[in-house]
Amino acid sequence: MKFSNRIEQMEQSPIRRLAPLAQKAKDKGLQVIHLNIGQPDIPTPPNFLQAINDYSVSVLEYAPSQGLKRTLETVQLYLHNYGLDYDLDEILITNGASEGLIFSLLAICDSGDEVLTFEPFYPNYKTFAQIADVRLESITTKIEEGFRLPSKEKLLEKITTKTKAILISNPGNPTGRVYTKEELDNLVEVAKEKNLFIIADEVYREFNFTDREFISFANYSEIEKNVILIDSISKKYSACGARIGSVTSKNKDFMHHILKLAQARLSVSTLDQIGAGEMDRVDDEYVYENRRIYKERRNVLHAELEKIPGIVYSQPEGAFYTMIGLPVEDAQDFIIWMIENIQIEGYTVLLTPAESFYTTEELGKNECRLSYCVEDQLLIKAIAILKLALQKYPG
Amino acid sequence: MKFSNRIEQMEQSPIRRLAPLAQKAKDKGLQVIHLNIGQPDIPTPPNFLQAINDYSVSVLEYAPSQGLKRTLETVQLYLHNYGLDYDLDEILITNGASEGLIFSLLAICDSGDEVLTFEPFYPNYKTFAQIADVRLESITTKIEEGFRLPSKEKLLEKITTKTKAILISNPGNPTGRVYTKEELDNLVEVAKEKNLFIIADEVYREFNFTDREFISFANYSEIEKNVILIDSISKKYSACGARIGSVTSKNKDFMHHILKLAQARLSVSTLDQIGAGEMDRVDDEYVYENRRIYKERRNVLHAELEKIPGIVYSQPEGAFYTMIGLPVEDAQDFIIWMIENIQIEGYTVLLTPAESFYTTEELGKNECRLSYCVEDQLLIKAIAILKLALQKYPG
Repeated sequence: MKFSNRIEQMEQSPIRRLAPLAQKAKDKGLQVIHLNIGQPDIPTPPNFLQAINDYSVSVLEYAPSQGLKRTLETVQLYLHNYGLDYDLDEILITNGASEGLIFSLLAICDSGDEVLTFEPFYPNYKTFAQIADVRLESITTKIEEGFRLPSKEKLLEKITTKTKAILISNPGNPTGRVYTKEELDNLVEVAKEKNLFIIADEVYREFNFTDREFISFANYSEIEKNVILIDSISKKYSACGARIGSVTSKNKDFMHHILKLAQARLSVSTLDQIGAGEMDRVDDEYVYENRRIYKERRNVLHAELEKIPGIVYSQPEGAFYTMIGLPVEDAQDFIIWMIENIQIEGYTVLLTPAESFYTTEELGKNECRLSYCVEDQLLIKAIAILKLALQKYPG
Repeated sequence: MKFSNRIEQMEQSPIRRLAPLAQKAKDKGLQVIHLNIGQPDIPTPPNFLQAINDYSVSVLEYAPSQGLKRTLETVQLYLHNYGLDYDLDEILITNGASEGLIFSLLAICDSGDEVLTFEPFYPNYKTFAQIADVRLESITTKIEEGFRLPSKEKLLEKITTKTKAILISNPGNPTGRVYTKEELDNLVEVAKEKNLFIIADEVYREFNFTDREFISFANYSEIEKNVILIDSISKKYSACGARIGSVTSKNKDFMHHILKLAQARLSVSTLDQIGAGEMDRVDDEYVYENRRIYKERRNVLHAELEKIPGIVYSQPEGAFYTMIGLPVEDAQDFIIWMIENIQIEGYTVLLTPAESFYTTEELGKNECRLSYCVEDQLLIKAIAILKLALQKYPG
């Protein structure tokens, strides 16, 4: 049987494909420190499960395709608290941020159209583009330069008649970068001049460790019809297992179009929406405390990475990831070797190889992404394992 | 801002787009009998919510992309009880049957490829094909002929070098048809000769009211590598609000490919999977009783429809839908007029216009789909409203 070219070209997620190695290590009796995946270890607000336990129905019915009213209102209020005001029909609840990103690409692009992004990027962007048969064009940003975005001129050089949108995550996954106003201004000007959509993946909005205020693309009222805001409760409320994201836009035609996609898949989990609807009762303190914890971990990580010679690294400013250039030829070979051969006190570690975070050939081959969703002590242990592995690695 | 051609061409779901009219009628104080949507009214097994209430975790984590082991095993056991044996890696949990259908199209077809189906079909098939940029080619089946499938010769005439798969629901939505062995044999022979996949949407498997045994495409071992089985707990366990479906295939390459799509969207709702995993504890009696109820409703519906002159209708054999040809020019105009103008004892009714269930222009314009997921007394009332509306309709 023959399969489609698009699926043959698709890769397994670099974040998830090495999971069997972690299982193998666990089967050998080792503890695995998962720095490969952005799975927060901080407790989900208890309101979430409580709301579901309190939800008593005899028939578990479809939710409306757009989302339950209560859940939509919770997203509306959340954005209002950031000074971003939306009508309810400018919000759609999605199966995680992933579905929102796929819907956006499908509504904007036909087969063969282009979307501009910045590498290294969240590798599923590539898969989402393949699903929509869209070409991902990327401009390289570099660890050594703190992943600074290119100048306006450089941006314009990459825009063709086929470019329909700019896709960007801020705070950045995997870069940990929080963009400055100047960098955002450039993107906004280009989007305005070239009439492009900006698909703004801001699921890490809360995790900004800089002294600069976080600026959302939705703050730019002059391009409000161009901006598509992608959000999710997964990270900010440690609720990845609930597949609740949202798409928000002042462009009502866009919202009308993606509602057709939403109707085709019928609805998003009713129970997850019941839980998500209660997140308006979560104290702001919960979010502040999480930010404090991740920032502290970021600092711990920084101090530990300083002790490793030969790595290329820049201090992350937000989200909970960082990219590291390793003094090895092939990061994936090294990561596999490390989990199979290195342990300290019964612990080993899994990282994510970063080659798939780039579209440019050969880039990222010696890089990895590291997520810091584990306690300080585990983080210290993990970096010690990484250090030892680099010393012992024969490759 | 410009949108994609594919989204511009996409229609709102005919099943969901008239929902605002129902709301308007409710706002006027009317009760609306929803024969437009396949939302079962039978209680969900209480094990479902109970399992979730018993699930006590501090962090609501991602499930594995393939699905939770317990949920996969429950699907495995369910199919085993039908004499269909699958390895765990031949099963994938999806966001409802919808996602399974989209994954299948993406894995099999590139942009411009063709899939053969039979009209009238479930209208979201059209949207799924548009998402994957695939051409849906359909052979017409007719109410007057009980939606009998075409001969092998007719099938072969429609196959081109671009045809990659046959997509069919059995028992049929919207037709209510349960196909005979002879009809299935023809499809299987064609799939074998032309090396096509069969995407077998069997979510209504339990709802067969004939004396014939239900035959799954998975029963044909000679084409086991061609068959993709689409399933869902929505209808059989009255759990539409839980977005839990599955894709099952003996074609391990296919399973490998769709796992990449599953990894990109990360996971399916953890809580919904916890509930679905418990469905192996539901007594078979639950399913038998549901079948008995729907069959009885089918009989009630039949008796009532007999009283309406001028309609074209054939007794449904399974699922919980039927198609009706109405003595009007435009069924959608009529349905809108009916909900806005006709009531009996404070009740009105919503049906689904069937034009979008066809790809052939002009077909289905005077037809509607009727779902019988309501109690006998409501069903009787609904058909009385329909009868009255047809008498009074000025159009």
